[in-house]
Amino acid sequence: MVAPLDRTREVDLRATIDGKAKPLGSLGRIETLALQLGLIAHPAQPAIGKVVLMVFAGDHGLVDEGVSRYPAAVTMAMVRTYLAGRASANAFAAAVDCDIAVIDIGVAADLPAHPRLIAAKVRRGTANAAREPAMSRADMTAALDAGVALAQARIAAGADLIALGEMGIGNTASSALLAHRLAPAALRDCIGVGAGQDDAGMARKRAAIARAAARSDATSPLDVLREFGGLEIAGMVGAVLGAAARKRPVLIDGFISSAAALVAIRLCPAARDYCIFAHRSAERGHDIVLQALDANPLLDLGLRLGEGTGALLAVPLLRAAARLLSDIASLDDVLAGRI
Amino acid sequence: MVAPLDRTREVDLRATIDGKAKPLGSLGRIETLALQLGLIAHPAQPAIGKVVLMVFAGDHGLVDEGVSRYPAAVTMAMVRTYLAGRASANAFAAAVDCDIAVIDIGVAADLPAHPRLIAAKVRRGTANAAREPAMSRADMTAALDAGVALAQARIAAGADLIALGEMGIGNTASSALLAHRLAPAALRDCIGVGAGQDDAGMARKRAAIARAAARSDATSPLDVLREFGGLEIAGMVGAVLGAAARKRPVLIDGFISSAAALVAIRLCPAARDYCIFAHRSAERGHDIVLQALDANPLLDLGLRLGEGTGALLAVPLLRAAARLLSDIASLDDVLAGRI
Repeated sequence: MVAPLDRTREVDLRATIDGKAKPLGSLGRIETLALQLGLIAHPAQPAIGKVVLMVFAGDHGLVDEGVSRYPAAVTMAMVRTYLAGRASANAFAAAVDCDIAVIDIGVAADLPAHPRLIAAKVRRGTANAAREPAMSRADMTAALDAGVALAQARIAAGADLIALGEMGIGNTASSALLAHRLAPAALRDCIGVGAGQDDAGMARKRAAIARAAARSDATSPLDVLREFGGLEIAGMVGAVLGAAARKRPVLIDGFISSAAALVAIRLCPAARDYCIFAHRSAERGHDIVLQALDANPLLDLGLRLGEGTGALLAVPLLRAAARLLSDIASLDDVLAGRI
Repeated sequence: MVAPLDRTREVDLRATIDGKAKPLGSLGRIETLALQLGLIAHPAQPAIGKVVLMVFAGDHGLVDEGVSRYPAAVTMAMVRTYLAGRASANAFAAAVDCDIAVIDIGVAADLPAHPRLIAAKVRRGTANAAREPAMSRADMTAALDAGVALAQARIAAGADLIALGEMGIGNTASSALLAHRLAPAALRDCIGVGAGQDDAGMARKRAAIARAAARSDATSPLDVLREFGGLEIAGMVGAVLGAAARKRPVLIDGFISSAAALVAIRLCPAARDYCIFAHRSAERGHDIVLQALDANPLLDLGLRLGEGTGALLAVPLLRAAARLLSDIASLDDVLAGRI
């Protein structure tokens, strides 16, 4: 389903990059990105024009255990804010000229129809993973399938790049469990403050996560996702796989979307070739996921918001990398006066 | 001439940022940037729409000593490449929707008139700083004045932000001398490989720079600039001061433009408030200049090209920061259902 990149093209592409009118290697990580984008697009020339940020929104039953300082109702309030164009993701998308697709895949409330809302609700939030599996197998499959189909629909409509973002009160707790089982890593090292927690809140969060972990010894990607994941996370797993299957790059945001990428790549290692990691989150646990995926994000700006904000800020770097290949003259042409 | 920022506004502006619909502090350095842009624009709301990258081009007499692996003629060849829209700076400017102004302030060759070339040549390259002062006082003043006037003309024509870039074979050698005297720091720690040098080339470069340093004990900013600087560097010093005097932010690229900012800020410390440092160059010596200016660049992508490439990649971060203030709803409005 997902084809790994054809690395036999790498030597030629590297030679093209090295032959551009600039000192050797002097564009640093933009050159590495150009190489990845070139391999993904081969035999076409890569171009990153139209970019869609897909913001998957879903609620978490685990919030009943007090893992977040915010109530689940904030998920719906933020979805309304995206639709009104007034959230951080909207502001950043406008700054970098990207479209946003807001997807209700599991908000625990009925959202009124809105021309900019993609209604793909699988159910109203997950079950409380501290007490039972977060999702039934059928619901998880529906969320995965929705993610695949929605990403591929954006690609069919002309998206050159899919960027991932999410909104879901409680989803750092869910992601901590995914990281713990799939990285794998000690549970305590995967738990951070999320949207902000005081000492008592952190104690509650740690205890609830520990109860969830004690309930199931799942270690296979789909079992871990079903036991501890979120509907928005399953949607992003599907989007990673759907975009990779269509040979499109996928831009991963912070901790939550990296946890989704981890699930996707454990399911289908070839999907790693299509993932680009945008931003090193300040949220504890992200480094563990990044190390597990041998990923070194492009940006480190202290963001810990989600919504795809970090992914959006990296979009211009990908556009620059694509233009490195298409726009820059060769050094030979410059020195021979052919420019 | 340059007014320092009015810090009494900082508490109010911080409260506005903290009141946005996001966890406290969760946009990290974008919040710090928003604060700086807000203070600069006060009482107006900041907006970073039209951005002009000013690429100052000039040659260096020091190249006669073998400090660069490239001949001075490459400066002119690259200016032609900018005018043809085929250099790295053009590719990146297209990726981030910025204009480029190419300025011949001291190229050591006659450039044919071109509709996109700003002809502001002060002289055909500097003198050889290993033997004599790089510039006469009159030439230095002319280059500084040109930088001020050209930046202010772009601002008068609607630029919200001036980004600085440069082209000048030999200018890492010149900048090493500026850093050494103005940071100040040991000369050896300021010298890097520039556009690339083998061991013999580095030995030549170090020896030529040492001869220049031994020739003059200048330590005042203008004396150091005149003895060791470049015409393109003087132009950028003028552009920093000209933009700051007009209360516009100035985006500083890598080692060379940071050395120019160092001269400008040593001349006029209030100009520091208007400078934003874009990218930590892989060129040795940049960290010394950054430390001297208490600057922590936004990006670290291994670039060491100049031309303003690092500055361009940071432009979207400034646009996002401005939109943080103008576009994002307050948390109160979101929670009260007023969105």
